[in-house]
Amino acid sequence: MSGESAFAALGRKLRLGVIGGGPSSFIGDIHRKAAKLDDRFDIVAGVVSSDAERSRQGGKQLGLPRPYATLAEMLGVERARPDGIDAVAIMTPNDRHYAECMAALHAGLDIICDKPMTNTIEEARELARRVQATRHVFCLTHAYSAYPMIRQARAMVAAGAIGALRAVQVEYLQAGMSLRVEDGTLTRKLRWKLDTAQSGPSLVLGDIGTHAHHLARFVTGLEVERLSADLGALVPGRRVDDYAAMLLGFEGGVRGTLTVSQALPGTENNITLRVFGETGHIEWTHDRTNHLRFAPLNRAVQILARGDPDLLPPAQRLVRIARGHPEGLLEAFANLYRDTAEAIAARLTGRPADPLALEFPTADDGAAGLAFITAPPSNRAPTTAPG
Amino acid sequence: MSGESAFAALGRKLRLGVIGGGPSSFIGDIHRKAAKLDDRFDIVAGVVSSDAERSRQGGKQLGLPRPYATLAEMLGVERARPDGIDAVAIMTPNDRHYAECMAALHAGLDIICDKPMTNTIEEARELARRVQATRHVFCLTHAYSAYPMIRQARAMVAAGAIGALRAVQVEYLQAGMSLRVEDGTLTRKLRWKLDTAQSGPSLVLGDIGTHAHHLARFVTGLEVERLSADLGALVPGRRVDDYAAMLLGFEGGVRGTLTVSQALPGTENNITLRVFGETGHIEWTHDRTNHLRFAPLNRAVQILARGDPDLLPPAQRLVRIARGHPEGLLEAFANLYRDTAEAIAARLTGRPADPLALEFPTADDGAAGLAFITAPPSNRAPTTAPG
Amino acid sequence: MSGESAFAALGRKLRLGVIGGGPSSFIGDIHRKAAKLDDRFDIVAGVVSSDAERSRQGGKQLGLPRPYATLAEMLGVERARPDGIDAVAIMTPNDRHYAECMAALHAGLDIICDKPMTNTIEEARELARRVQATRHVFCLTHAYSAYPMIRQARAMVAAGAIGALRAVQVEYLQAGMSLRVEDGTLTRKLRWKLDTAQSGPSLVLGDIGTHAHHLARFVTGLEVERLSADLGALVPGRRVDDYAAMLLGFEGGVRGTLTVSQALPGTENNITLRVFGETGHIEWTHDRTNHLRFAPLNRAVQILARGDPDLLPPAQRLVRIARGHPEGLLEAFANLYRDTAEAIAARLTGRPADPLALEFPTADDGAAGLAFITAPPSNRAPTTAPG
Amino acid sequence: MSGESAFAALGRKLRLGVIGGGPSSFIGDIHRKAAKLDDRFDIVAGVVSSDAERSRQGGKQLGLPRPYATLAEMLGVERARPDGIDAVAIMTPNDRHYAECMAALHAGLDIICDKPMTNTIEEARELARRVQATRHVFCLTHAYSAYPMIRQARAMVAAGAIGALRAVQVEYLQAGMSLRVEDGTLTRKLRWKLDTAQSGPSLVLGDIGTHAHHLARFVTGLEVERLSADLGALVPGRRVDDYAAMLLGFEGGVRGTLTVSQALPGTENNITLRVFGETGHIEWTHDRTNHLRFAPLNRAVQILARGDPDLLPPAQRLVRIARGHPEGLLEAFANLYRDTAEAIAARLTGRPADPLALEFPTADDGAAGLAFITAPPSNRAPTTAPG
Repeated sequence: MSGESAFAALGRKLRLGVIGGGPSSFIGDIHRKAAKLDDRFDIVAGVVSSDAERSRQGGKQLGLPRPYATLAEMLGVERARPDGIDAVAIMTPNDRHYAECMAALHAGLDIICDKPMTNTIEEARELARRVQATRHVFCLTHAYSAYPMIRQARAMVAAGAIGALRAVQVEYLQAGMSLRVEDGTLTRKLRWKLDTAQSGPSLVLGDIGTHAHHLARFVTGLEVERLSADLGALVPGRRVDDYAAMLLGFEGGVRGTLTVSQALPGTENNITLRVFGETGHIEWTHDRTNHLRFAPLNRAVQILARGDPDLLPPAQRLVRIARGHPEGLLEAFANLYRDTAEAIAARLTGRPADPLALEFPTADDGAAGLAFITAPPSNRAPTTAPG
Repeated sequence: MSGESAFAALGRKLRLGVIGGGPSSFIGDIHRKAAKLDDRFDIVAGVVSSDAERSRQGGKQLGLPRPYATLAEMLGVERARPDGIDAVAIMTPNDRHYAECMAALHAGLDIICDKPMTNTIEEARELARRVQATRHVFCLTHAYSAYPMIRQARAMVAAGAIGALRAVQVEYLQAGMSLRVEDGTLTRKLRWKLDTAQSGPSLVLGDIGTHAHHLARFVTGLEVERLSADLGALVPGRRVDDYAAMLLGFEGGVRGTLTVSQALPGTENNITLRVFGETGHIEWTHDRTNHLRFAPLNRAVQILARGDPDLLPPAQRLVRIARGHPEGLLEAFANLYRDTAEAIAARLTGRPADPLALEFPTADDGAAGLAFITAPPSNRAPTTAPG
Repeated sequence: MSGESAFAALGRKLRLGVIGGGPSSFIGDIHRKAAKLDDRFDIVAGVVSSDAERSRQGGKQLGLPRPYATLAEMLGVERARPDGIDAVAIMTPNDRHYAECMAALHAGLDIICDKPMTNTIEEARELARRVQATRHVFCLTHAYSAYPMIRQARAMVAAGAIGALRAVQVEYLQAGMSLRVEDGTLTRKLRWKLDTAQSGPSLVLGDIGTHAHHLARFVTGLEVERLSADLGALVPGRRVDDYAAMLLGFEGGVRGTLTVSQALPGTENNITLRVFGETGHIEWTHDRTNHLRFAPLNRAVQILARGDPDLLPPAQRLVRIARGHPEGLLEAFANLYRDTAEAIAARLTGRPADPLALEFPTADDGAAGLAFITAPPSNRAPTTAPG
Repeated sequence: MSGESAFAALGRKLRLGVIGGGPSSFIGDIHRKAAKLDDRFDIVAGVVSSDAERSRQGGKQLGLPRPYATLAEMLGVERARPDGIDAVAIMTPNDRHYAECMAALHAGLDIICDKPMTNTIEEARELARRVQATRHVFCLTHAYSAYPMIRQARAMVAAGAIGALRAVQVEYLQAGMSLRVEDGTLTRKLRWKLDTAQSGPSLVLGDIGTHAHHLARFVTGLEVERLSADLGALVPGRRVDDYAAMLLGFEGGVRGTLTVSQALPGTENNITLRVFGETGHIEWTHDRTNHLRFAPLNRAVQILARGDPDLLPPAQRLVRIARGHPEGLLEAFANLYRDTAEAIAARLTGRPADPLALEFPTADDGAAGLAFITAPPSNRAPTTAPG
């Protein structure tokens, strides 16, 4: 964790306003803990519900110094304060991201935003353009990309450790929607997830498909150029997608597969990424997040560990505690916040950011994610009969 | 290993002639050891090369009591002996299976045959019809299906342990053709494998794709109805297929994926099968062949072990040594031979075979395999561009 | 994370002063992050070095609101403030714990203290008596005991899940002192560790042996009654202990072994605990901290996961994020702080604490640890020659 | 499997007589399959029960060409035949090994014998001396030492891959005697096992302790010089030992521990060996018998696989099938038989044996095993009370 020169030069913590993430929200708690973990953000303000009264109450309950009723109120009041917020963190239902991001940019703020970035490809492209134009900092919270051993994987691929790439496999398997949740009393979260107007064109692709897609792009450095999809619902009668399997064609002729589902009983948020090159392959699984499997051609498999003394710099800088002492999702999420703080500090101070801090996902990644989500509908099933 | 009544009633070992599998052949050695392991076959004759002189010499070197120069010679002479062979085991290049099988059937013999059964769908169907007509025993050596824990998986699926099926994932990943083996001095085996006239329309599908396809069908009891394929070569300039990924549509709307390759460096014959149902899933990997992972919905994962006292009968009967003492491929292969002996003995004695002995792959499975191999060529790449 | 009634009733965060843990300290960073993670403590004061000037500078550098030069100063000034500290967290070299704890108790403060609690059994007993007498809260930071799946193990043992206990195996293996670190420039930390006057009678037993000993006692609920030890240095010429293996006799005739070392190359802080009962056993390894292996007699092994819906209450309440999303050491450490906050709040408000919050290690555990550390020196090697 | 020059020179299979191992015997089946697997032995004779009639019947049932009623008969008749047996394989209760071995040696035969070699140290030493004097071949079936990756471990240690040795951990944990088997109807096998006159002074040490002891000696090349033991029964009321834990002092100051039990519910014949040196350690577990974990100091862990192209010669020669295709106990057992055949052939032909074939356990290993079994009784429990 060296070289964060811009943040050090800034000489103060950044002030963050949260949008969404009320007291009962799982992801809200993660965001707030991650933002604070490295003492680079104070959470000083927030709009934590689309209902004005609930928002104010929820903000108080969370102990926010300045709880607001509406986003407009927060942006207006904070702008007028000498100690107003520097950035917002957005963790609302997907259909609200676009407007909230645009408002935040208009208010001159930097942004940390949950994925998927928007619900349409048009919005995504427009937002990416606007981020580009304003030169504001935008971090999309694909937190899995901030695990140290994923950064090691990316650095090894870039350094040629497995040679020219050949094939990629990525999967993200969940069990959470295995039952007919539609039939019970819907939680607030399920209500918007099951409403495609809010959650977007393909639930499974927006919820976890984008994570898998980003992880593959992030580690390989390659874009998906073509795909064939098998997309739909495993649970009978379900009207949103809960399963997607795809054949992928990456740049340069690299082949791949992607499988994601939220309705596979017995799975546990299993994320697995394998990247094969001409001289070996690497494999990372969420379940063993502190390790990376490296299998060179015709030699013994190696199990690299977070904390090994010879990790590459992008991984080494994220190691917080000694080898053998496990780190988890919270630290990965916090890595995104810490690096975003460096980028924001660089913008505010005009000093260069630590280059290794700039690997967090951006609005351009968000636009790539929407292109991926919106590609398959023309192509939802296998086509050929054998025999 | 109970209830093999027909073999016991026969009161003697069966006499086997081998076709192919010369002294330097890997698979020949496996076949012979597997055939003899349970004292149900004596290998008394053989034609171990397509070259007459090499065949006779090789047979002698292997210690075969009656080495022959040609298949015709073996079939003729053996037929005339009172103690002539009961069955043949075929382990020749793929393009010879059809003719050899037809000749063996014509000579009134039962057959154990390597996969793929033939090189064309027409031959496969013709052979399956002929086996049906003659009522001879035909065992196709998809040996992975004879691991005890694969039989346990199949029995659990059939018993409803994971409820109505939803999705299937199967993969078989090898590294053996990762390098440009085409450029070196070709071994005898590589020479025929790289010649599609001998090895069939798609090398990777014939060599290992059929194993994966059979394993998925065997455990689920479902046929593949539709597929989309990404099929080709990962190694630049290669003219045979070394990679296939597929989206599968099984009977009853069950979805699936299949990935096989012979050119993924660092892999070790990794076979993994996962079957997902509405109340849980099962996972088997070749690497942990003595165990089966059973993950019920919302309950702790269970690791079933070969030797557990409560395995289902189709698995229990295949357990040879105590839990914790590993068994391997040899025993699986031998299970096929032992059960084929029971079926042959049933035919010879007219007594019913142990029903649990009749799970070995048949000529119909061989025909299904050829339908699978020959389906994809119209459909070799992903089709849609994202964004 | 329910039922923390006392803390809720208190209605404010607790104010913490840290003792030790300067800017370069690994354990200091963990303590501070863990204390703050659940918003139950504000770190408002500190003495972070035994050197007055370094302490003040270090405290400033860490951003502490009230950095002090000496412990006496901190205790005096804070006592006089209406918003003075409620508790101290002690992370100094071992030989200073006793005096610091006694001073803190004298100042009416509650205590979180690193292990080993003291360097002599007499000090340990005196401190435990004093804590008893003052009824102050004392938490000894055996953080491994606060992993959710360790709590599950303890609750399962208590509930009879494995029947009457038979045997226990515990080990803690490190590589950090594999080389002759004595020959190089000593870091501040190594300097006091290698000085037995500061680090205590047996380095390896104080550093990690007490963790292993506590973990075994915590999960089984049994005290060690007798032991035979093999204790010494693996590294030639080393004057402190870096290896200990022991045969243990627990209460009730339960047998056990304990192995700890800091000089085993290639290990990664490997902690493994196995507890065997008459109907099964459980196994937990640090490397798989989010899971617990439960092997019932003659049935399939079960892999329980943090987040499984049917975990027992002492584990369930510590689950922070969804099954399959890894948690690590930070959360375990924070669990100790959060529960200590509940106990302190109970003392301050006179309300009963959540009973499940009271499983953290106490001064009595510290005294048991010192009895363990100081037992073996009479008995340092195997005794009988075979043959 | 190269270089077995002596066996090739012999030009025929060896003729084996079995002693013990009737039709229902587990170990008898393993012995016979292992003896035959590599076509180096024909089993032509046998005495398979101490009851003359049962022996003859059992031998017939097993299909032995020459079933005998008594050992004396077999030795006498076979000696007179020009094609009489070359060697015997002994798999009787422990108390009979000594007399049977002496008789076989007297008859000029080579011996394969189950462990423990005898029931007293005096018998063991006498037998070892006699083997030495007669220069006959004697193989003690510690089959775990013949797994390829155990041979790799031994070769790596010998080659200095982990530097000067520091510490050894070995354990062998079984569940088979977890219940009060004494209370039920005893099987023939249990009857002699529970009778110390037949099974020897310490059941657990004779049954599995000798395996663990031999494995540690075999891989390290070091003898145990001193030990302290905790030895007894975990099952209440049991009169034979079912548990042993030991602190070990090896030659050269290397430390170690050994833990074995037959009454630990939920275990599965778990054998684990770890050897630590100054620059790394190796770990092998029975459960992953086709792999070896090599953890070098401060570098990534390596998982060596049976079949890796760069294994050391003693391991490489034992690889039968391709990497990733599992081998099991049968192949390990067969490795002992195959190498013993080479040694016997060398004696019969006067040609040198392949040196790598001479790593099988000998009568001297058997004597070391008895010294180990008989050492601990003076020393059966931990001695010091803590605190």
